[in-house]
This record gives sequence, structure tokens and C-alpha cells, in this order.
Amino acid sequence: MAGNSFGHIFRITTFGESHGPALGVIVDGCPPNIALTESDIQFDLNRRKPGQSKVTTQRKEKDIVQILSGVFEGKTTGTPIALIIFNKDQRSSDYDAIKNLLRPGHADFTYLKKFGIRDYRGGGRASGRETAARVAAGAVAKKILDQYKINIVAYTLAIGGIYAEKMNYTSIENNLVRTPDMNAAKRMEEKILEAQKKNDSVGGIVEAIVHGCPSGLGDPIFDKLDAKLAHAIMSIGAVKAIEFGSGFKAAAMLGSDHNDKFYLDGERVRTISNNAGGILGGIATGEDIVFRVAIKPTSSIAQPQQTLTTDGKEATIKVLGRHDPCLCPRIVPVVEAMTAITLADALLSQKTMLSDR
Amino acid sequence: MAGNSFGHIFRITTFGESHGPALGVIVDGCPPNIALTESDIQFDLNRRKPGQSKVTTQRKEKDIVQILSGVFEGKTTGTPIALIIFNKDQRSSDYDAIKNLLRPGHADFTYLKKFGIRDYRGGGRASGRETAARVAAGAVAKKILDQYKINIVAYTLAIGGIYAEKMNYTSIENNLVRTPDMNAAKRMEEKILEAQKKNDSVGGIVEAIVHGCPSGLGDPIFDKLDAKLAHAIMSIGAVKAIEFGSGFKAAAMLGSDHNDKFYLDGERVRTISNNAGGILGGIATGEDIVFRVAIKPTSSIAQPQQTLTTDGKEATIKVLGRHDPCLCPRIVPVVEAMTAITLADALLSQKTMLSDR
Amino acid sequence: MAGNSFGHIFRITTFGESHGPALGVIVDGCPPNIALTESDIQFDLNRRKPGQSKVTTQRKEKDIVQILSGVFEGKTTGTPIALIIFNKDQRSSDYDAIKNLLRPGHADFTYLKKFGIRDYRGGGRASGRETAARVAAGAVAKKILDQYKINIVAYTLAIGGIYAEKMNYTSIENNLVRTPDMNAAKRMEEKILEAQKKNDSVGGIVEAIVHGCPSGLGDPIFDKLDAKLAHAIMSIGAVKAIEFGSGFKAAAMLGSDHNDKFYLDGERVRTISNNAGGILGGIATGEDIVFRVAIKPTSSIAQPQQTLTTDGKEATIKVLGRHDPCLCPRIVPVVEAMTAITLADALLSQKTMLSDR
Amino acid sequence: MAGNSFGHIFRITTFGESHGPALGVIVDGCPPNIALTESDIQFDLNRRKPGQSKVTTQRKEKDIVQILSGVFEGKTTGTPIALIIFNKDQRSSDYDAIKNLLRPGHADFTYLKKFGIRDYRGGGRASGRETAARVAAGAVAKKILDQYKINIVAYTLAIGGIYAEKMNYTSIENNLVRTPDMNAAKRMEEKILEAQKKNDSVGGIVEAIVHGCPSGLGDPIFDKLDAKLAHAIMSIGAVKAIEFGSGFKAAAMLGSDHNDKFYLDGERVRTISNNAGGILGGIATGEDIVFRVAIKPTSSIAQPQQTLTTDGKEATIKVLGRHDPCLCPRIVPVVEAMTAITLADALLSQKTMLSDR
Repeated sequence: MAGNSFGHIFRITTFGESHGPALGVIVDGCPPNIALTESDIQFDLNRRKPGQSKVTTQRKEKDIVQILSGVFEGKTTGTPIALIIFNKDQRSSDYDAIKNLLRPGHADFTYLKKFGIRDYRGGGRASGRETAARVAAGAVAKKILDQYKINIVAYTLAIGGIYAEKMNYTSIENNLVRTPDMNAAKRMEEKILEAQKKNDSVGGIVEAIVHGCPSGLGDPIFDKLDAKLAHAIMSIGAVKAIEFGSGFKAAAMLGSDHNDKFYLDGERVRTISNNAGGILGGIATGEDIVFRVAIKPTSSIAQPQQTLTTDGKEATIKVLGRHDPCLCPRIVPVVEAMTAITLADALLSQKTMLSDR
Repeated sequence: MAGNSFGHIFRITTFGESHGPALGVIVDGCPPNIALTESDIQFDLNRRKPGQSKVTTQRKEKDIVQILSGVFEGKTTGTPIALIIFNKDQRSSDYDAIKNLLRPGHADFTYLKKFGIRDYRGGGRASGRETAARVAAGAVAKKILDQYKINIVAYTLAIGGIYAEKMNYTSIENNLVRTPDMNAAKRMEEKILEAQKKNDSVGGIVEAIVHGCPSGLGDPIFDKLDAKLAHAIMSIGAVKAIEFGSGFKAAAMLGSDHNDKFYLDGERVRTISNNAGGILGGIATGEDIVFRVAIKPTSSIAQPQQTLTTDGKEATIKVLGRHDPCLCPRIVPVVEAMTAITLADALLSQKTMLSDR
Repeated sequence: MAGNSFGHIFRITTFGESHGPALGVIVDGCPPNIALTESDIQFDLNRRKPGQSKVTTQRKEKDIVQILSGVFEGKTTGTPIALIIFNKDQRSSDYDAIKNLLRPGHADFTYLKKFGIRDYRGGGRASGRETAARVAAGAVAKKILDQYKINIVAYTLAIGGIYAEKMNYTSIENNLVRTPDMNAAKRMEEKILEAQKKNDSVGGIVEAIVHGCPSGLGDPIFDKLDAKLAHAIMSIGAVKAIEFGSGFKAAAMLGSDHNDKFYLDGERVRTISNNAGGILGGIATGEDIVFRVAIKPTSSIAQPQQTLTTDGKEATIKVLGRHDPCLCPRIVPVVEAMTAITLADALLSQKTMLSDR
Repeated sequence: MAGNSFGHIFRITTFGESHGPALGVIVDGCPPNIALTESDIQFDLNRRKPGQSKVTTQRKEKDIVQILSGVFEGKTTGTPIALIIFNKDQRSSDYDAIKNLLRPGHADFTYLKKFGIRDYRGGGRASGRETAARVAAGAVAKKILDQYKINIVAYTLAIGGIYAEKMNYTSIENNLVRTPDMNAAKRMEEKILEAQKKNDSVGGIVEAIVHGCPSGLGDPIFDKLDAKLAHAIMSIGAVKAIEFGSGFKAAAMLGSDHNDKFYLDGERVRTISNNAGGILGGIATGEDIVFRVAIKPTSSIAQPQQTLTTDGKEATIKVLGRHDPCLCPRIVPVVEAMTAITLADALLSQKTMLSDR
């Protein structure tokens, strides 16, 4: 059924295929009177766009966004905001040779089983290109969060086993892999280029931190903030795992170590540690929300792989075309966007719980 | 806003607090003509109920379920199925002493911030006791899955760093911790009792495997099967992380290793490896769906902890009462239930995509 | 699919059959800290309950409501409020004789076609008895509206062609048919008893007026306030039509007559006339919301009617048992309840559109 | 909150203002493998487009639709179908003179109260122009209904008190007012032109009939088929009322007359009369679904009317520009579209209730 909307109150609905005429999103439920221009949105789109460096795909898309509705004289009006990005640099012929082959790691097989038909050009709807619409919508969500001084930062924590260690968050955008450790950046970059040279790809970990989230956000028991974030983030292609705060480490801990003790910081109730990752009982505590996301290595690789044709015959495939040897650098703004969308929804939701009488 | 429903087509809505008169669930959208009795539901409730062994809480609840609607002459009618479990063994006085204290690791603080009021008795709505309603609903979902021979098995994979290694799935219910390795079971049990003796608690990992899931289930791009499962599972209290297939290991892998190669098994398209965890592009492949879940150590521990009163004064708390020293044994059926509910929803959803002309 | 929930933010989910053990509702999304007791709810349930006078069914149900969750020390907590009413006076044997006959005007045939199974006892889920759950939920919604001084009054406007003319709204509850005209009441009552004597039933019109609805409520373009009200009201069994303000009369009017002119009343923008019925562009104007609802004559009548058996043979049916000869008197509180639920949802929704910065 | 989506399984989300760059819709949940071209959609858009005759507005919009996604090689793929219509003939200067005036009968005042900001050009989002997106989506829905031989016909039943009487449904598209009675058409046309000459407008009634709807569609108790249709139709601007089957006449009828008696027509269970309007208990019976809709006279009239400025000063307004003197001819395809969308949703929903084992 209809699975292309996300959010209840701040709700996005996206459309578009990798090689169709355009991609886009309708953002519904955005409050009125928020200043919004195309350049607000373009900023994040540029961070996600292809062809931005030697460690990303060389497909050239400027990903210029246009606002089609919902904004009047520079301000949101409360009506649906439609954002569109026209595709410019499709090279569908790249896909002719493999249109009857099942690419390993891709959704070719499952789309065929689900729908009985599939747009094979560039992966169609299953392309990572759909995330452009998410990033555009996320930029709108961030405008809401700005009003509350909620700030999201995401970055590459690890690539192919190499971890950022000495964190300097101001340097994230100063290296090609978007990591806060300039030394690790160098080694991560080499790791990527090395994989690429072997017609291979490599995975990584993206970490996100939300500063300034007001306590109280999240809607138990099913729309807990961590549950919604997990939903949002896991819906991004190539994500294999998510952990909050202590994450998998919690499994080997004792309660006496894991419990974050409360203390008073001025007038504010805080916790000494943050194993909770900023969320208790599915509701934000006010501490930083922290989570990590595992990104699998890109499935499109140019080396020969065993596979089947769509009608079940044995075959070998090389996925040529232009692909990212590592998804992390470009997935960072997508993780931010989905986080922003989830928080905007939770923020507006919380307004319905507050007494104004 | 209203966050106590889950699922679109097969939709559950739950209610109830730990020390209120009753807990329950309305299961809406269940197809008609499915045989359903209270004993079908009681079976899983018994696996979740408190007081079942020396490694669980000693609160004594029989958790007897009653069907209030939606079943006629032993069969579902397509109308909402209401299931109710009356609370019997509340001991609210246990909570009088701590009603003005913020229990570390618990949702006391966040519920107060969210709602400005809270039922402090046994954690109120934030109690793990609410999962009884999930398990009851899950038993209904399993009846649907049975018709398609979809089978879910969940078990304790690790407790406090001790892992099950030699898997024998038939022995899961033959030990107190619900693990498929009887040797590990012994050591896990000891680990729990040791923590308990020190007024402490311990975390673990639960793994779930779905056999026989038809390829095609899952609704991209936001209601991908893994995204919905992550939402479902992360909404269970105490869960800190979830990973599918290769999970966090994918972050250090190469694409050539991670890609699952396709081959033909009789007439069926299969993959040699299953790093995908049974889901590609958010849609089931037909291979086993495999995921692991990190469970934090129980927050309620009887040793003194630093905290604050609800009005911000420094204090020390000991959470007395009856608690599970490790949540894994009883969370296993909850993981199964949420998995079943998610799959039933996806299964019914897929019917709307199939041509019948 | 799951069709037993209504509302987005203030959301109700109901269950129960006429002759099952109980009926009930979960009210989710109700703000916290609202005083709520069972007697608040019982008041409206008593106005709807069967057996209240000689012009209603003689089935004797006290319809005593119990709050199972979501209320603590007399106040809502923001968690789901479950309300339950146990059935006491089922007389299922009344239905044995007709269990294989299709009652004209009833949903026997359509439930069979939809579900392939049906609880024939008292109409099962299709019974008017399900409206008890709506009324219970409506009483909760009214508590929210009370905080904003929004007041709903509904009443019988006409029965069998006899209209209330001289309106005195304080007398609505002083006559058996719930009409604001005591003279008309007498004649309406006679009309009902006359129909009853002939083993027949009679239809009517219910009118509702909402006073004090703040301007701004309603969510274009699909969740317009009138569209949601129409949905809510048309979902009540036996309703055949709804009209707002000028209603069907608008079809023969000129724009110059129909347009409500604006004027200033103190500081408030008002309209001289109210053909709009208090809603423009799907959003409340602040004037009274006014609508009328056509109620068909009760389908259950004791005179012989031509019909078919469930397996398609010709037959004659007399629907014996205990039935309302006219639905209006008891449907009045149901119309109020569905109106209150719709307004509460719109009211909470509007909070998400208002700037608080 | 987000109110610009309609439908659960077949779900549409629309955007666009009268004088913005474009209008459009995302149709999500449409099954795959349905042949769909732009000309399928253009056909109905042409029936709705402005400037089509002397009795409609003279704004010239070709309303050319483009498919942006969800269709591959002429067939739907199961992914979201985005449809876009660019605005071409905006004349926003028409609105400069009245941008600070509250147009009577329009949503200027209520949008201001709701959102605190409004795009005054051509009514912005509140313009009837948004219905172009509904019609486009409706054309997709009709392609689904075609597979089941479900056919919808809507037409003008009355204008300004003049009723169609001798019905000949083949002539609906042969006259300017879209009525099935060519004689009445003449008089209706005159009525419109007469009103227009006086700078006035006139209301009317549109009737819709659905042939071939399978019994079983509709999802009690809140998503009853008539309740959903009422929601869908009442969400169209200018609609003041809806009645099904006997409608308001039911209010004066006896049960013995109103009940539709069952009989066997070959192997099919049918009813002799159709007071139910094809729906019993909220579920389609298989008889024709019949409803009537009251359309208010166009609010935009060029004669002087008393009003207020947006800051509350007395003023006089003449709404110049290009407007329909009667909305019926162009609203007919909109009624069809919303009916088709509702039925497509109910049809797909019913698939989830049917056993396939």
C-alpha cells in the first residue's frame, strides 16, 4: 500500500525515479509564517548531490530545487509545500545491458516479486537518488527546528574499519568524507580510493547528534522518539543497523553502570552519563540524542559477480555506470534530513499535549 | 498525539497501566474466518508472564486473557477483536516511598516533562507490563502468518557478554533464559543470579529469525519491511539497538563480500549468503529475515543510586519491589509478537498490490 | 481494512457487538490534566441508553461505564483512556428464528458479502448498540471542548414530517423525543406510537448547533471541518443525509443572497447571515456551526416483509425483539458525541499550526 | 495538521495554488501493471478546465498534465505517480485591488484566522482550481475501477430550481451544463446567463450514480462507504450537503416503505427498491450507489457587497476577474473524481479482507 509518506503532523510524501523526468516531495503540515527560500533548501541538496568530489559518483546533477507551492512572499503559508528537482544527467543506456540481470545487493529481484514490473533504469524508485527529495524536505524541517534552537549534526564515524577518534566537529565539511577527524579523513579517503581501484566498494558508520532537543518529545508507546527515528533512518537505502546511546554495548553492561544518574545543572535536571542516548521511555530527556547507523558497502560494483537473469538463467554481471565507492559522505545529509523530519513531527505533536488554559 | 496504535491494515491499539484495573488491545483489520480461541493467545502470554522462574520478577500475574469481541463461534468475523487482561497482583504500596523520586534509567522524568502528570505506581503506562497487550495481539497476528506457513523464532543470543554458540533451536523453551544453547544457558543463568545477588541487573541480545516469509512484503520507500520492523522492535521498552543481517559488521566490509549472489534452487531464486538479512530495498527476498536486538540491563535495581526528587532536590533511591534481573527471557515473546504484527500488516498490504484480473 | 478508528490526534477506536460480553472504546491523544470521572461519561450514556421511555426500545441496559486506564487520581494522564460497558440484557434467542434470513434495511446481506461470516445476534457489530462507545468517547471530547467554552446542542427537528417550530432549547430534555418545541413534541410522540402500533417505524431529522467554536478550526483541503463532520455523522447507522447551513436550499439561491456579509461586532469579525453554517473554505468562521441530519425509519419492524434466506430462497420475515420505533430521541446524543470528537480533533490539530515563538 | 491527503491504501496528496507556478498530485498505492497515459488523464481534465464554454469562467488554462513518475513504458509500476499541471494564465493583478478585503462567501477570513497569512492571488490554495489535481488523480482511480467494470456517472440534476426530468444519460456531455435532459439544459443555461447578466451567480444540485460496484466495499464502522464518500464530496469547495438514496425524504417515511425488499435476480441477491442508495450498514449492496450534492452559488460576484477590510474597517467589494456564474458544469467531473478515488480505496481495502487460502 501507499508507503511513500512519513510523519503524522509534519508529513512528507515523495515521488520520482532515478531516470524519470523529476523527483520531488510534498511537505504537508508545515506551520505558517516561517521564512523559506530555495537557497535554504539548496544548501543541503548541494551536500548530497552527486559529482561533488573524487570519492563520489561522477553523475553530474546540479539538483536545483524549485518551490512550486506553499510559500508566499518568502514565507510558508501552512499549505502544502511542493518541491521539485528535475533530472538532467540520466544515462539510461548504461542500464540496457543489465536490464534483464538481477544486480546482487540491489532491489531488482524484490521489486519484480512485489510489483511484477520494474523501471530498470538506474534502479528506478529504488535508487539512492530518491533521497534528494528527503533532503529537500529535511531542509524545511530544519527551519522549524531552528526556531527552537534544535541542531542536528551527522558525520562519518568510520569507513572500512577506520574510525574518527579526535573529534573536531567544525572540520566535518572540510574533508571529502565528512568526518570530524582530519587525520582519519585522510585514511578513510585512501580506503575508498583503494576499494574503487579494485572495482569494489566499502561500508561505514554514520553518527548523529541532536543538540537542544526539548525534553518531552516522543509519543509512547508505539511512536516513541527512538522508534520513529529508527523507522526514519532504517528507511534510507543501505542502512543495516541503528543503535542509540550505549547501543549494543548495553547488552554486556550491568544496570548499575548503565543507569544515567540524575543531577541538577542550575535549574535543569540532567544526567551525568548519557547511555540512554537522550531518550528515556521513548521520550527525549533534553540531553543530546545520539545514534549510530551502519551503512553497507555500495552494491553497485564493476567487478564480475555471479547472478541470474530475470527469467532464472545463470549469468555474470558487472555493474558499470557511475557509482559511489562509499555511501557515507553523501548519506550524512540524508541522515540529518530524516532526523529533522522526525523531530519536527514530534515537536508539533507535543503541542497537542500541552495545556494552554 | 495518539501514539498507541501500530500498523496500517492490521492495526493494534493498546491501553493500560501496570497498576490500573486492566490492560488490553483492540486488533482491527484482522481478516475473517480465522479460527481463534483464548488458548491460542494464552500460550504466548504464559511465555511472557511474570513469576515464571527464578530469573524473572516474582510478581504473580496469571495474565488470563478474555476475548471481548470480534470472534463468533470460534472464528474471527473481520470486526475489531478486543482482548483484555485484568491486573491481579498490584502492590502499589511498593511505590509510595519513591513516588517523588526520579528512578534512573526510567521514564519518570520524561513522562513528567511530557505530560505534567504521571501514574507513578509501577511505572504506569511506561511499565514493561504494557507488553502483555502486544503479546496478545501478536498471537492473533501469528494465526494469520500460520496460514502462509510463516514462522518466527526469537531467542536470547547473549546475556552479559555470554553468547549462545552451538545452536539447537528446539531447546529454546527448555531453559530459563530462552537460548538455543543449553550450555550457554547455564552460564547465562548464573550471570543473572550473580547480578541479582548484588542488587544489580544485566543486559543481553535477542535474535529473531523469520522462516518462510514470502518475497514481496514491504512497502518502500518509507514503509520498508526493515524500517517497519525497526520501528516495531525499538518501540519495546529497554531496546537500544537493532541490526539486520550483517548489521554493524557491514560497516567494515567490501561490496564484493557483502553482496549476496543469486542462484537458482529448483525453481526458486535464492542467495548464497544472507548478509541482507532477508530484505533488499526494503522488500523481503524470501530468505530468512534475521535481526538482532540489544536489550539494556533492567533499570530497576535495589542498590542505592544518586538521583533527584521530582522537585529537583538531591536524593538517593533504592528501587525495591519485584523486578526482572535480566529482561531477555521475557522479552523474547514480545519481540516475536511485534515481528508478527509487522509481518501481518505487510502481508495484508501486499494483497492490495497484486493483480487479480 | 481497519475501519474502527476515527480522528488523527484525538483518536478513538471502538469495539464490541450487540450480544457480545462488552462494548468499549480507547480514546488516544487526549491531553493530560483534564478532570474526568465515570459520572462525566455516564451522563451522556444515560441519554442514549435503551429502555429510557415508552418511545424507545425496551431492552434494559444500564450501560454502566468503567474507566480502565488513562486516568489517575481523577485526571487524564495523556495515555490512552479505555472505557468499557458490559452487556447485561442480551436476549440472543430472539435472533435464532431469523439467523438465516436477510433483514430488509439491515446490514445482514452486506456483512455476509464483505466478511463471509456474521454474528447474527442482535445485528452483531452492525447494531446501533455500538454507538454507546461513541457516546462514551464523546463525553471525553466534551471535557476538552468545555475548556474552550465550545458547546454542542443537538435535538430532534422533525419526526415523520412534523417539525419543531417555536424553539426553546431549554426544553429539549423535557420531552421524550428531545425536541426544543413542547407542542411539536406531543405530536411527534403520537406519530411514533401510531407507527409502533402498526408494527411500523418512522424517520426524522436531527439538527445540531455548535456555539463558541473558535475560528480557524478545520484542515483543508481534505480534512475540512465540514468534510470531517460529514464523515463522522454519516458513519452513524441510519443516517441518510447531512446538510450544513443553507444546505439543499443553496441549490436554488443566488450568490447575492447566499453570501454572508461581514460586519464588525465590537472587535470581532462576524457575518450578518449564516448560510455558510459556520464554515467557510472548510474552516470555522466563529459563527454557530449548524447542520441537519436525515435519519431513516428503523429497519427492524414487526410486520411481515418479503425477503430471502442467506442461501437465496424466498421467505417472509417479521423482525420481533425490542426495537426503537423512531431512532431520533436516542440518536441525538450520538450526533453530539461524533461532533464533539471531530471538534476535539480539529482543536488539537490547530495547535500545531499556531506559532508560539 | 497535514490535511492534503485522502485515502488509506489508494492515497492522494495534492498541492498548488491558483496563481502559483503549478498544481499537482501524488497518487500513492496504485497497483502496478495498469496501462496509463497522459491522455487518459487529460480527458477528464478537459471536462473540468476553465474557459470551456460561455457558461464557465473565461480564464484560459489548457491544464495539460504531465506524468512525472510511477509509470514505465505505459504502465503503472506500483510506485508513486506524480502528476503536474503548470499554471499559464494567472492574472494576479486582478487581485491587487481586493487583497485587503474579505470576500463574502470565500475563505479569506478563515485562512487568515487559521494561518495568519494568506496568498490572496486568486484565492490561493482555497481556489476551486485545486480541484484540477483531484480530477487528475480521479482519472487514475477510474483506470482501476475500469478493471472491475465499475462505472461512475455524474451530472447536473438542477440549477436555480430547474430540474432535469426526462433523463437521457447519453446526452450529458452534449450540453453546456452537463445535464441528462436536453430540454432542461436549455432553461438551466438561460438561468445561468440571466444571473451572470445581473453580476450574480446561481446554485444547483449534482447527482452521481455508480453502476457495477461490487457488494462488500466499505469499512465499518467509521470508514463506511457512505461516510467516506460524504467526506470526499464535502471536501470539494462549494458543496453544502449530500444525501444518499432516499436522503432527506427518509425523514418523513415509514419503515415499511423505506426498507428495500430482497429478491433473487438469477443468482444475484437484489433489492426491489433502492432507498438505501446502494449502501447498507456502510457496505455496498451491489445496487447502484446514488447520491445528490448541493452546490452553493459561486461566491465571486461582480456586484457591490458589504464587507470588511482585513484590519476590520467597513468597505464595499466587487469581485471582478473571471468566474463561473454557476459551478455545476465544471464540478461534475470533480464529483466523479472524488467518487472514483473513494471507491478505488475501498476496493483495494476489501482485498485485505478476502481469504486467499
